[in-house]
Amino acid sequence: MSQICLIGIGTGNPDHVTREAEAALRDAALILVPRKGPDKADLADLRHAIIKRAGATAPVAEFDYPERDSAVPYVERVTQWHDEIARRWQSLIDVAPDGPVALLVWGDPSLYDSTLRIAERLHPQRSLRVVPGITSLQALTAAHAIPLNALAGALTVTTGRRLRDHGWPPEAETVAVMLDGDCSFQTLAPEGIQIWWGAFLSMPEQVLISGLLSDVAAEIVASRAAARERHGWIMDTYLMRKTT
Amino acid sequence: MSQICLIGIGTGNPDHVTREAEAALRDAALILVPRKGPDKADLADLRHAIIKRAGATAPVAEFDYPERDSAVPYVERVTQWHDEIARRWQSLIDVAPDGPVALLVWGDPSLYDSTLRIAERLHPQRSLRVVPGITSLQALTAAHAIPLNALAGALTVTTGRRLRDHGWPPEAETVAVMLDGDCSFQTLAPEGIQIWWGAFLSMPEQVLISGLLSDVAAEIVASRAAARERHGWIMDTYLMRKTT
Repeated sequence: MSQICLIGIGTGNPDHVTREAEAALRDAALILVPRKGPDKADLADLRHAIIKRAGATAPVAEFDYPERDSAVPYVERVTQWHDEIARRWQSLIDVAPDGPVALLVWGDPSLYDSTLRIAERLHPQRSLRVVPGITSLQALTAAHAIPLNALAGALTVTTGRRLRDHGWPPEAETVAVMLDGDCSFQTLAPEGIQIWWGAFLSMPEQVLISGLLSDVAAEIVASRAAARERHGWIMDTYLMRKTT
Repeated sequence: MSQICLIGIGTGNPDHVTREAEAALRDAALILVPRKGPDKADLADLRHAIIKRAGATAPVAEFDYPERDSAVPYVERVTQWHDEIARRWQSLIDVAPDGPVALLVWGDPSLYDSTLRIAERLHPQRSLRVVPGITSLQALTAAHAIPLNALAGALTVTTGRRLRDHGWPPEAETVAVMLDGDCSFQTLAPEGIQIWWGAFLSMPEQVLISGLLSDVAAEIVASRAAARERHGWIMDTYLMRKTT
């Protein structure tokens, strides 16, 4: 049974790449690269630079992500989208040389990423290998030089949608928020909450803001809008901690 | 103001090291290495191998971790321990050449690690740089080839002590447990919980067990005890998800 290897490549800094990731790229018989991902074309060149610097010599097959049908309910829409991507990978793999098929994943394949779920749809099923990579949460805490958890404390990682729908997670002291296109921290009562926010983490365009949510919420909203306007896209994440 | 650079080096696989970590080691004017950490001597050689392979040429200063005074209450004990480690670093840094001081950290400096809190005690205070590294949670999910979060779901990261004291975190669907020397999953009602456990993750000695908690809890407890007996120490972590 041949292997599909999902390789975490970090979050925009090509130096996030690990020795393990580079070796896996060199071992690949085929490397799948999206022509333009959800993460925009700025990042597409970075993938090719990483492949080249690793010394990989396998053919690179490009594919397009399908459009998502916004008329379909969320879970069904995601399922259809995964099915369609798996079909596109399959058609490229079917004509590939024998050996491991590699796919580069932003961040880490385990954290809010679809590739594991898509890879499981391939037929015949391939053995799955996952190479971990630096996540945006790690890039965020590194940039602010802060711990992710309070001393011996717990941490909740959640999505913007959940934060909006359910509020501050019960009994949580530290909350990290991913996939938030709407600055959902604005839905919280800001008293007693410290926030560390970052966009374009680890990239030359990196923007960092931190402070009491009551002091900096408006500044984050404005900076985010301006940076998005300037670049045409944005990736951001944040961590919040109760100060009491 | 000179820099102290906390470098995440991953979790036992020397190939977890990133290009950024290797460059930071080469830039260092002094590298601090514990003679024997909480993580046992097996891993001490790995630090030196990583430094050498990175091509770092700075002097390496070894220090001993102090004993913890178990008669003192937990938080005070940890505080005293951090103070004493900071004093030991300080005495080595005071006689060091000018330039960045590097310290290798297992996993990532942000996740259940003390070095950020210790570094803040140095005088005069140095600028802090953090280089992210692969964590044991990422090594766990990579080894099992599973996502950390359910689709669009939330994740709680907690400690063995908290799991024992507070039970399953309220409303959590996925729970990752760190710093658990007591297989605290045994305190849960096991029905409807899937567990993925791993010890010596990413190392040649790696042990993996997964299944329904009701089926595999006893097997994990026994495997953990046997592996600990065999090696003289153990590092392990696990992820649990509600199956309903």
